[in-house]
Order: sequence, then structure tokens, then C-alpha cells
Amino acid sequence: MRIGMLVIGSELLQGKISDANTPWFAQFLRSWNLTLDQALISHDTPAALAAALGQLSRDCDLIICSGGLGPTADDITKLVIGDFYGRPLTTTPGMRAVARGNYQRQGRELAPEHPYNFAPEGFQLLDNPSGFAPGLFYSHQGRTLLAFPGVPKEFRDMLSAHFPRLVAPLLPQQGLLSLRTFRTRGVPEEKIFFELCPGLWEKLEAFGAVSSLPQIMGVDVGVSVRASDQIELDEKILAVREAIQTSPLAPYVWHEGAESLEELIVARAQSKQMTVSFAESCTGGLCSHRLTNISGSSQVFWGSVVSYDNSVKQNILDVREESLKRFGAVSEEVAKEMALGVRTKLGTDVGISLTGIAGPGGGSELKPVGTVWIGIATKETLVAKKFNFRGDRETLKLRFSQMALYELLDVVTCKDLEK
Amino acid sequence: MRIGMLVIGSELLQGKISDANTPWFAQFLRSWNLTLDQALISHDTPAALAAALGQLSRDCDLIICSGGLGPTADDITKLVIGDFYGRPLTTTPGMRAVARGNYQRQGRELAPEHPYNFAPEGFQLLDNPSGFAPGLFYSHQGRTLLAFPGVPKEFRDMLSAHFPRLVAPLLPQQGLLSLRTFRTRGVPEEKIFFELCPGLWEKLEAFGAVSSLPQIMGVDVGVSVRASDQIELDEKILAVREAIQTSPLAPYVWHEGAESLEELIVARAQSKQMTVSFAESCTGGLCSHRLTNISGSSQVFWGSVVSYDNSVKQNILDVREESLKRFGAVSEEVAKEMALGVRTKLGTDVGISLTGIAGPGGGSELKPVGTVWIGIATKETLVAKKFNFRGDRETLKLRFSQMALYELLDVVTCKDLEK
Repeated sequence: MRIGMLVIGSELLQGKISDANTPWFAQFLRSWNLTLDQALISHDTPAALAAALGQLSRDCDLIICSGGLGPTADDITKLVIGDFYGRPLTTTPGMRAVARGNYQRQGRELAPEHPYNFAPEGFQLLDNPSGFAPGLFYSHQGRTLLAFPGVPKEFRDMLSAHFPRLVAPLLPQQGLLSLRTFRTRGVPEEKIFFELCPGLWEKLEAFGAVSSLPQIMGVDVGVSVRASDQIELDEKILAVREAIQTSPLAPYVWHEGAESLEELIVARAQSKQMTVSFAESCTGGLCSHRLTNISGSSQVFWGSVVSYDNSVKQNILDVREESLKRFGAVSEEVAKEMALGVRTKLGTDVGISLTGIAGPGGGSELKPVGTVWIGIATKETLVAKKFNFRGDRETLKLRFSQMALYELLDVVTCKDLEK
Repeated sequence: MRIGMLVIGSELLQGKISDANTPWFAQFLRSWNLTLDQALISHDTPAALAAALGQLSRDCDLIICSGGLGPTADDITKLVIGDFYGRPLTTTPGMRAVARGNYQRQGRELAPEHPYNFAPEGFQLLDNPSGFAPGLFYSHQGRTLLAFPGVPKEFRDMLSAHFPRLVAPLLPQQGLLSLRTFRTRGVPEEKIFFELCPGLWEKLEAFGAVSSLPQIMGVDVGVSVRASDQIELDEKILAVREAIQTSPLAPYVWHEGAESLEELIVARAQSKQMTVSFAESCTGGLCSHRLTNISGSSQVFWGSVVSYDNSVKQNILDVREESLKRFGAVSEEVAKEMALGVRTKLGTDVGISLTGIAGPGGGSELKPVGTVWIGIATKETLVAKKFNFRGDRETLKLRFSQMALYELLDVVTCKDLEK
């Protein structure tokens, strides 16, 4: 099945906003073992939109549109799509029920003459679980079109809700599918399948499509395992897992599954009833921000001290003036004292500290920009580790925080550290 | 001039990476008063690429390509473009000088048989100030094509270097240009030009193209002022400024210029030699993270306390147990005590606090998800303000932090608050 993405909206071509829907949809398709054939961003004028539809219709069996379904004058998607297929706008009781449903779910009423009640003849209107504008579905002579609002949350929620139901039956029978993700760290993408594990890609491909997706300081290796029944699927998943676990990649895998690092930390700390805190210098609060993006983090994350100035390190974290003078703020000694300080002052099971140089200024020959010390304090241990990364200020902050979260994951995972 | 963007790379359609070049280029074009006509993402196969070139050539006078110019087997852009225009690959001393130059700038040598030395006949190779792969330039019978590597930094640096030289002469004579940005907050985009200032858009349009760009809880109003000489330009800029300042929009403008909120806070606090700190609860460190993204922030930002758990509010910030019990953590009283506490404990001129409910859980009828109290402590004042926002957890964290930074900007701007 050849799939085209049509992104509608002049604001995207004017640089006012970025298109977040294409990358998301492309990733969504991977779990279906499908790939986008092309993506097109079009102005929301009738001529541009019709030309884009024509272009995609020539090449694709399935067109997914995003944008232009709102109620204002520049929301012309429905009209132009109708014209393109020679279908005038109409309204039926079924259409009105869908449109009204989106309003009623949010405790509101919809006037029956509102444009949301209308669709091109022969089209289906689609529920919008997260907003008011209905989507569109049309399938005719092997060509299928789905249109959703451009608001990323609505686009995602509607695709997730309607794609499996409406598109999956059109796909060639594929049997059962399970997407296995092996999240790795510490080995660059170009090395995994060439230097470290030549032959692994081919071995995994026997079970389904293989992918390799670089993340922040890590690579996700994915296998879309296919089988005709559940027993075969389970066997194949075991075989994939074994292929990874017996390969030289095994020590680099930190998780099998799609969960984020932050989600895993929160879940594991929760299950062990452990509490954590950070003493952040160079990351300026980013570790705490990332962990608190997870709902439920308040059960394990008690707080942090962002000790940017040395006075804060001394006064709040009890870092000794002597250590700062003798070793400097970016040092093993200060990282340890920060971790110990935040753990003690906040009364958590784990204290993680970061002190480093995010640049662009402040580097030296001995401690260049990109140097970071990460301290780890638990009831049993107090250590600090040094790392060096490359990048601009924001990249370095992200890499520093990623490494600290990797370390924290190790701490909340390790069985020896149970309370 | 009709401009098309061709983004080349299967990894974009497979969801492995996002296209960062189209939004950047679209914004770049705004400063030239130009708009993208369409953007297309294509697989890096000869057939897909040729079809995309055909599509864009029908509609556009200028095509900008990104990607596929590297040295590996899937980098086919040069070959396919050459085929498309019926131009075989060749190499000339001029081409080899450009290709060698990119290497020599980085202290390396380039073999004369390397693919970088080659280009379609009649094309120019273009310097790459930030990498090794040369770009391409071709102009023939009113049609122009520029191709750059897809690496965002190289794409941006090469566009900035070559576009003015190669494309500007092809544009209709436009005279001088100055892009003025008026950053507003507190009034929704749809109200500005309809309810608040009907007629303002037309008034501003007399001086150049007007744009309205929604940001986080604010709108940037832009005017591309054009003039034939500097005196006229200065007069027009003054007139634009006066039109804004005498309009009902004036009280909502917090800055004229393109600087970010974080940059302004750091610059103004620096100039007043003021120091700041945060006590962050619901934002979990995001305010501190945002401020420390600015190089030089260490001169004004001393640190923060992320007081997620109430014990941290009490033990580190000296929030009284009685206040927590009587008013709850999300309250005016606690916000004030947090702001005062962090200002006092860290010894800064300003202390800003946030305590609120980012959700999805934790809301109540009296304090729904989206409620936030922001406390402001200076030498002279101690106040707290309540706000209510909508959104999911990450959106709310962002909006809370934005409002706190707006408040901080007011504090570091207000002349009464000088030390």
C-alpha cells in the first residue's frame, strides 16, 4: 500500500509553525510495518490543495490529510476534497450524530446548521475524542482518504482511534504483529551492525522488519515480529530476544520495550518505594523537569537543588569551601559532596548530582566544555563519574541530563539497593 | 517568485528523523518577504526523486533541495538532478577548487577522484563553510535550483551564505528591508485584529507585509518594513512603532525585537546587577532550565529549589507547616512563603515561586488542574498571583513557566526595583 501524507496550512509554509504530524505519522506507520511514500505541505488555497490532491492521487492508494477542518473561512479542506472527488457537501442524520457527539462529550451543544454537520456525499464523518472538528473517511475503487484536524493532539488521537478500524482491513493479510524495541546506550549506531554485531541485522530480519533509530545518546533497535498465530508469535519473540541477548549487543541494552527512560525510572523507583533528588548545576533543572513530566513522579521525586552559583552549593548543599577552592566546582569531590548534600538535606534514598561545563564559555584545557561529573549518593555508596560530551549548550545540557538519568536508572534497578 | 522546497531522505518518511530544514527555510524566507509555495518530502530513490523534481518544476521558479549530497551509495541527489536536466556529471578545475576548499578549511586533503569533485555539467559547486559536501547551483531559462546537504547546520550556514548572493539578484528590486517584531502577551490572536484593533492590520500593511505569529501564551506581530533609502526606512519604522504604541494593543506589547523572553530577562537583570532564584513546585525545574539555556545566565541566576514534596518546602524553604495544613500547598500563602524562602536562603535580589496543579491527577473543584499561584519576593514586595490555564501536563508546565518568566521580566524591567 502506497501512502501519501498531505499537510494543509499556509502557516507551515510561512514558517509560523512546524509540521509535527508527518514525523509522528511516519513513526506510527512503522508499527504497522508501513512506510510513507511521500509527504507534501500545501497552502490552504483551493488551487494549491487541489493540485496537491491530484499529485498524491496519482501515486498513492491511501492519502492522510492533516489540517483545514476547523470552522473558519480558511478551513477549506472539506470543500476542496469534495470538489476533487465530485461530491457536493451534504448532511445526513449519521453525520449530525457524529458532529453532535464531539460536542456532547465536552458538555456542549452544536447548532444543526454548523459546518461540522456537513461532509461530501458518500463520506463518513469521524469522531474526534479530543476536540470538536470531525474527521473524514472516504474509500472508493481502491483509493482511500482520511482527513484529520491539524492540531497534533487531535491528529494523533484520531489516527490512533480510526486507522486500525478503517485502514487495517484494507491491508494485505499480515497475521499477528508485535513490535519489539531494544533500547541501547553506549554504542554508536554505525558500529552496532558493522563492527559489533555483523550478521545480527540479517538474523533479526528472519523474524520481521528491522529498524535502527538513533535517540539521545542511544539507539533503539526494533523488530516487527510477524506470525500467523499467537503460539508462533510468542516463539518468534523469544527467538528475537535470545538473538539479542546472546549477541555482543546484549550488555548495551538497557530496556526491552517502548517506555521512556523517565517512565522506567519512576515505575521502578515506585515499585521499590525509593525516593530521589537531584543537585543540578550545569543542567540547570533539566533532570528534574524531565522526571516531573511523568505523571506520578511526585511519589518518587521529592525535589532538587539547582546550585548554579557556588554560594548555593555551600549554603544549601553543604559543599565545603575548601573543596571548591582546592578542586574547583567541576570536580569529583564537589560532585560527591553535592550528591550527599542533596540526599541528606532532602531526606531521599538517592541523591544524584551534576557539575560540569555546558559552554560556550568557561572551558579550559584540563576541563574543556562538555566535561561533567555525575555524583551518586545512596545509603550504601557515594561515587562520582566523569564524562565528556560534544555539542552546543542546549545539546550538552540534554546529554548531561541523559547520562544522569541513565545512572539513576541503574540505581533504581539494582537489587542490592533495595531499602 | 514561486519557491518549492524538496526534502530528500527516506529516513524522514520512515519517522527516524524530523525535517528541521523546511520550517527554518520558511522563516528565513520571511525576512526576504518571500513565502514557500510548497514543500515535498521524497524518498532517496531515483524514481521518487525524479517525480518530485518534475512536480516542483511545473509549479516553481526556484527549487531548494536538502539532503542526499553525501559520499555514500544512497546519496544520489547530484546524479538524479543531473539526469533530470539532461546534464551528465563532470569535473572542472573550478569544481575541484571548491571541493578541495571545504577540506582545506578543516586542515584535510581531498582525493581528486572523490565524488565531491563532480557536478552536472553547467552547474556550480558551492562552498560549504561547516562541512565537506559542496552544494549545487543551477540557473537556466528563468528556473533556478539550489541543493544543500540535509544536516541542519550545514543547510542553514550554506543558505545564509549563498542565497543572498545567488538568489537576491533574481528577485524584483525591493530596496531596503527591516523586519520589526512586536511581542505581545495577554490577548488571543483572534482578538487582536478583530475586536481589539480593527483597522490596525491595514494601517500596518501600508509599511510592508504584516504577520501574526502565535507563541506560548502570546502573539508576535511582525511588519516587514520596506523603503528605497535609509532615511525613508527610519521614518517608516518610527511610523510603525507609533501606530502600535497609539493602538489599544500597546499595553500588551512586552518587547519590540526578536529576542526571547529568557534572553531579555538575563540581559536586563545583568544590566541592573540583579540576581534571581526560583522555588519551583509544579514546573519541576523548567523555569530554571529555560533561564540556564541562555549563555551568561550564571551572572544573574544563582539557583533554585525544586520543592516537589511538602517536606522540601518546609525543610529547605522554611514554608510553615501551619500554612500547608490550613491553606494547602497550592495557595497564596504558600506561594509567598516559597518565594520569600528561596530569596532569603539563596540570598538573591528576586525570588519567584510556583505552586500549582499540572495534572492529570490532583485537581479538585476549588483548585482544578491548571491552577497555579506565582509568588514574587523582592526587597520591597512580597505578592502572589493566581492563574488558571488549560492543557495536558507538559503544556501546563510550559504555560506556568511562561507566566512566571513574564512576571520575572516585569520585575527586572521595573525601574523602582533597582538596588
